Amino acid sequence: MSYKSDIEIAREANKKPIQEIGEKLGIHSDHLLPYGHDKAKISQDFINSVQGNENGKLILVTAINPTPAGEGKTTTTVGLGDGLNRIGKKAAICIREASLGPCFGMKGGAAGGGYAQVVPMEEMNLHFTGDFHAITTAHNLLSAMIDNHIYWGNELGIDERRVVWRRVLDMNDRALRDIVTSLGGVSNGFPRQTGFDITVASEVMAILCLATDLADLERRLGNIIVAYTRKREPITCRDIKADGAMTVLLKDAMQPNLVQTLENNPAFVHGGPFANIAHGCNSVMATTTALKLADYVVTEAGFGADLGAEKFMNIKCRKAGLAPSAVVVVATVRAMKMNGGVAKADLGDENVDAVKKGCPNLGRHIENVKSFGVPVVVAINHFVTDTDAEVQAVKDYVAEQGSEAILCQHWAKGSEGTEELATRVAQIADADQANFAPLYADSMPLLQKIDTIAKRIYRADEVLADQKIRNQLKEWEDAGYGDLPVCMAKTQYSFTTDPNRRGAPVGHSVPIREVRLSAGAGFVVVICGEIMTMPGLPSKPAAEMIKLNADGDIEGLF
Amino acid sequence: MSYKSDIEIAREANKKPIQEIGEKLGIHSDHLLPYGHDKAKISQDFINSVQGNENGKLILVTAINPTPAGEGKTTTTVGLGDGLNRIGKKAAICIREASLGPCFGMKGGAAGGGYAQVVPMEEMNLHFTGDFHAITTAHNLLSAMIDNHIYWGNELGIDERRVVWRRVLDMNDRALRDIVTSLGGVSNGFPRQTGFDITVASEVMAILCLATDLADLERRLGNIIVAYTRKREPITCRDIKADGAMTVLLKDAMQPNLVQTLENNPAFVHGGPFANIAHGCNSVMATTTALKLADYVVTEAGFGADLGAEKFMNIKCRKAGLAPSAVVVVATVRAMKMNGGVAKADLGDENVDAVKKGCPNLGRHIENVKSFGVPVVVAINHFVTDTDAEVQAVKDYVAEQGSEAILCQHWAKGSEGTEELATRVAQIADADQANFAPLYADSMPLLQKIDTIAKRIYRADEVLADQKIRNQLKEWEDAGYGDLPVCMAKTQYSFTTDPNRRGAPVGHSVPIREVRLSAGAGFVVVICGEIMTMPGLPSKPAAEMIKLNADGDIEGLF
Repeated sequence: MSYKSDIEIAREANKKPIQEIGEKLGIHSDHLLPYGHDKAKISQDFINSVQGNENGKLILVTAINPTPAGEGKTTTTVGLGDGLNRIGKKAAICIREASLGPCFGMKGGAAGGGYAQVVPMEEMNLHFTGDFHAITTAHNLLSAMIDNHIYWGNELGIDERRVVWRRVLDMNDRALRDIVTSLGGVSNGFPRQTGFDITVASEVMAILCLATDLADLERRLGNIIVAYTRKREPITCRDIKADGAMTVLLKDAMQPNLVQTLENNPAFVHGGPFANIAHGCNSVMATTTALKLADYVVTEAGFGADLGAEKFMNIKCRKAGLAPSAVVVVATVRAMKMNGGVAKADLGDENVDAVKKGCPNLGRHIENVKSFGVPVVVAINHFVTDTDAEVQAVKDYVAEQGSEAILCQHWAKGSEGTEELATRVAQIADADQANFAPLYADSMPLLQKIDTIAKRIYRADEVLADQKIRNQLKEWEDAGYGDLPVCMAKTQYSFTTDPNRRGAPVGHSVPIREVRLSAGAGFVVVICGEIMTMPGLPSKPAAEMIKLNADGDIEGLF
Repeated sequence: MSYKSDIEIAREANKKPIQEIGEKLGIHSDHLLPYGHDKAKISQDFINSVQGNENGKLILVTAINPTPAGEGKTTTTVGLGDGLNRIGKKAAICIREASLGPCFGMKGGAAGGGYAQVVPMEEMNLHFTGDFHAITTAHNLLSAMIDNHIYWGNELGIDERRVVWRRVLDMNDRALRDIVTSLGGVSNGFPRQTGFDITVASEVMAILCLATDLADLERRLGNIIVAYTRKREPITCRDIKADGAMTVLLKDAMQPNLVQTLENNPAFVHGGPFANIAHGCNSVMATTTALKLADYVVTEAGFGADLGAEKFMNIKCRKAGLAPSAVVVVATVRAMKMNGGVAKADLGDENVDAVKKGCPNLGRHIENVKSFGVPVVVAINHFVTDTDAEVQAVKDYVAEQGSEAILCQHWAKGSEGTEELATRVAQIADADQANFAPLYADSMPLLQKIDTIAKRIYRADEVLADQKIRNQLKEWEDAGYGDLPVCMAKTQYSFTTDPNRRGAPVGHSVPIREVRLSAGAGFVVVICGEIMTMPGLPSKPAAEMIKLNADGDIEGLF
């Protein structure tokens, strides 16, 4: 049996005009701002007009810790959305936009896979509707205005050594990580050391994804701390007077993008903050808009549930007043085997013992998610080499944890493969069993918030923070930032800070390397380990193979 | 009498859906890729399908040397296009896109003015259809791939001191003019000095605007010289293998953008290369497509006729096989007075003598344009303070030169104000009087091409070029680049290289400071004087005043 590639399937998609997709959600074509025939933004006027609607049910898709075997979180998000529509529910999905930079390094990412994809795939991997370009521009306008302020007299008394606002590009470019600017003499300003991050790491991206409307966007942008004076007083974006112009640049980018799945169901694809130094979820605007228009909204969080679901609950839901009705944890037999110690090359061989041995990783994620008061269903994303005995081993394990695991075959069959999952998820959501609460109160001291996550989610024994970090957290509390949630940046591959420790380890420590204040986004970033905010290209970048072929199709991007 | 501002008039525009504008040109809505309801790109398939059509007549709008009084070149281009439509002709206009960067420094530019404007004005000053963002990304992908190539072993033997390809942003940011990259240790590459230019100064912009189709685009991108080896052998974009991916990034940007005038006539707005280090005209794609769809195509060239029209003729027309049927030289009574020595504050007072004294600047431009074998009409762009006697003085002067000057009132009256101009221009174009030829043959040596322009257009006595520059030109001739046209970069304010010498000076010299090879765009840039490729922001940037007001309208951008 031979399989079609994701791109082959995507190119065969029987796409409908985006106006028809909008109509499914009651959006008249006047309120859709088209970008070509298969992408559109939803107008702010329309969004305002539906604020009185009742909210649909919010369903989060998260996963075990990622392994090289792959787990298929986006694929399952798409498959579940299509499955809900198949069983007659009015459902939409919400996922993140892709970053352009990495496409030229490794191969570009499909949005989903097999018969559970969002289209148009190529545009989503390239410029899409220009949101990331708008974020890049808004970010760099602020950067230019900071240096310009210093150049023209530095009235605010910025300490040039303490400018914390860098620049961004949506590009993997290691040469820009660490640079000296303003060389060349008087007319170019005051030389100082700074650098570029990739656009998804911009605080502007996090802000756009957490802002509830344009006024909230402008307020948050204004709150960004860009520098400090010699007396260590913070200088904000508002002091620089960049917040208004940045809001104008982001006006269109704030409007959620509507596209479709292969089965012509509505998909919101909007925003894409880093899942380490930011919260890693699609925009609040997309999620809240989808909830007004659909009865079920399926969304996903970045990385494994220890990072992604935790931040979804403690940051996004807390800030936006959202409460999920159910959580789907995606697992694969192959990933369980890797957690059970099997090497990637041997994943094709049946190994029920390894599956059983790896299941505790899944078990801990289930337990963690339940601790937020939300019911859990496990989706076993089927792979062709999985045996019945292996699948049964996962099901049995999950049943022992008091939950249910359902085999899904959306990759091969589309919505036909998720009927059972969709039916069960709808039942759970409709039963209103959830009693969601974040893990910690706003009022808890910052270090205690970190400690709570480390002990209750990572199951660590202790958090290691030196005096400098403790002092910094204390300073921020004194300055009025103590109520913010914390945004953990650690490896996605393990509950610990060591990417090689799979399974469900205990007895480890969580060392804090650095803390950063994202005053605009509204969280304190806690960095545990090496976090790269500007990737590089590999020795043979994918870009070398990307081209238009004679038919005008893109080759090498996928 | 009080006048409405450009933005007030633009906001009152009775815009039609872009599909209706497309229909005027015979473009079915399937072939229009909409960006919102009032902007669209024209599909490549459609463009291919009309290649058999006969070409319409091409009319160039150029101007006297700009003065602080303003001349209204784009306004006249729009007004003439509307005027031709008013008298029953099928006409379209072609103009350049605006750069985002300068909008945050000085006020953003309207496309035209008064009742001769192109809309939507705000979008055209912001992200528009994303073309410039695509150019920025394609340019910077090449930059990243060059440093990445060096990082991973430098197989091509690039001399790190001789990397000539910089980076770009569509931002006024003086701090990025001169920087050192790749600091911070081994994993960030090899430190070297480089910098950023503004996107409109990118060779990719010039290439996009000169390429005739996607294959030509890819070929030209491949030809870009990015660096030299220690033996001074050129390394191209093709050697770096970036040309394919850059073409993919620019695929949509290559498609011309269609918008409309206030009078709902079709306007192509596409591309915007610098008029100094590049040729300063809208894209060849837009012009050639418009010529297939309309009977008359009115387009403009950057700066005054000494730079803009010269490059339009010698670079764009030569390369794209275009031939203008008529040229309109725009002049104003006020600008004539400034050329005649009147200070800006005194321009409101009648001064017929000063008008007469300033007219030789206009006269020389008329003569220059005629030397390309194309008939000339002068458009006097009327200003409210102009007196009948002053207008008559210009008319009389132009008549003495054997041409005709026509008073136009499109700013105040729209197409009603250009009926006479339109009628006359159509007559001239229909009479096929033009016998266009570029000023010099491809085969002429490079220095002689420069000499020809300096003497025949600028009326200089001599070109000053030191031995280093002469050797460089000789080297390029030996390397096979001798057939390229030259692209002059000098001040726009004077026929000389001194911006303060108005009128029609003679007896001056043209000193060449630097020459650069744009092997992808296909011209040799000749720099005479200070040319800034990365502007800075002023002490009170316009950005400080730009914001969304309570109605959601943009304030401060205009």
